[in-house]
Amino acid sequence: MRKKKKVNAAILIIGNEILSGRTQDKNIAFLSNWLNSQCGISVSEVRIIPDVEKTIVNNIRLLSKSFNYVFTTGGIGPTHDDITAKSIAKAFKVKYGFHKEAFKILENYYGKEKFNDGRKKMAKMPVKSKLIYNPSSAAPGFITKNVLSLPGVPSILNSMIENCKRYLKKGSKVHSKTINLFTVESNISKQLGLIQKKYKKLVDIGSYPFFRLGKIGVSVVLRSTSKIELSKVNKEIISAVRAKKIKILNI
Amino acid sequence: MRKKKKVNAAILIIGNEILSGRTQDKNIAFLSNWLNSQCGISVSEVRIIPDVEKTIVNNIRLLSKSFNYVFTTGGIGPTHDDITAKSIAKAFKVKYGFHKEAFKILENYYGKEKFNDGRKKMAKMPVKSKLIYNPSSAAPGFITKNVLSLPGVPSILNSMIENCKRYLKKGSKVHSKTINLFTVESNISKQLGLIQKKYKKLVDIGSYPFFRLGKIGVSVVLRSTSKIELSKVNKEIISAVRAKKIKILNI
Repeated sequence: MRKKKKVNAAILIIGNEILSGRTQDKNIAFLSNWLNSQCGISVSEVRIIPDVEKTIVNNIRLLSKSFNYVFTTGGIGPTHDDITAKSIAKAFKVKYGFHKEAFKILENYYGKEKFNDGRKKMAKMPVKSKLIYNPSSAAPGFITKNVLSLPGVPSILNSMIENCKRYLKKGSKVHSKTINLFTVESNISKQLGLIQKKYKKLVDIGSYPFFRLGKIGVSVVLRSTSKIELSKVNKEIISAVRAKKIKILNI
Repeated sequence: MRKKKKVNAAILIIGNEILSGRTQDKNIAFLSNWLNSQCGISVSEVRIIPDVEKTIVNNIRLLSKSFNYVFTTGGIGPTHDDITAKSIAKAFKVKYGFHKEAFKILENYYGKEKFNDGRKKMAKMPVKSKLIYNPSSAAPGFITKNVLSLPGVPSILNSMIENCKRYLKKGSKVHSKTINLFTVESNISKQLGLIQKKYKKLVDIGSYPFFRLGKIGVSVVLRSTSKIELSKVNKEIISAVRAKKIKILNI
């Protein structure tokens, strides 16, 4: 079997409503889970920025150079605050205007009479972009170089995500395993630290406190592209916590 | 009355668990709302990054130069993946070690016998930092230059937030007003665009589609530090939508 490469992505959330705290973001967790499970792509950075052209342009330039893919969400609707498409064209210095196929799709969807200027705006984008079809509300997303632009409304974004697949090269999926313990972090920090040192770069060990039924617990989360290494670390941690007589919740 | 200045902040979420989509972030919306309503501080950028020292160091350096304050969440617990304090010391090239007051607080909280190495680690930070007291679980946050470091667990972060106030200079609060309409965005995009142009920089107008009881609607959100300008824009939008016979939901 040919070994797959590591493929990574950044998510750029564009929108004052997320930044101001008015709207709770739901796209980050969805995109991150989907990219890993369906494509073996790891999200390496997320940024949330305002609807300001200069800020969008700078971030697109920087992130598209640093990561294999950039996913933008938000700012592709019909109103004045929707400036993602124009900003991406500016970032890559490519022509911005009506995209022929997008124009046809939208004209067909609304009918010629109801295809007003606001709706026409949604057909404006970098003219050489490829489209990401939208089965919910017609207005397509688009891919420009390595930047995939999706809408901000979670239900619409979710309905379009499968149409991104054709543009993405696959990487190695990160597998994970969670060990839930009824203990406090400081009781196992030494052991986890030693095991992490031994499996450096092969397995990533995270430790997260939780509260359940009034009790404090720790979720130890192992993540690795290798199931074999994951299983080794899992065994070592289980014997370490058994030696300390800590109750394990999920075996 | 002296005019207050604009004060801004960035939020830096440190943690693989948020980036991987395993955990849904709840701190961004909470912090952003609290900072605006209690201190008149606007969050201008959010970044979510992994538990990687070099990445944390670079982001701390960059964000602390670009914004009045930086709030970090996560990575200040007792385990090997908690590297925020050490990374901040590195970013500012200041001494990292036991913070005397933090050490006393934790020793007192746990008692000398139960004060093990993992717990002692939570007293390690840039030694000249000032503490952000923690009424839930004792382990303090800290402020280093203009960077305030808080834990990732939302309930603990929430309980500490009032203790940040003494370190923050106040800015102008951003007031907001929402007009909910039963229409589609493209039906009012032209009017909103014209009004936004007229009140450029004074009032920020956002337009967000919503779905309620099977109907499509638009929330028009006005944001401004001036209540007077906010009220003017509110009136103009209401007369514009009335002229189009659009149903307004919340007057």
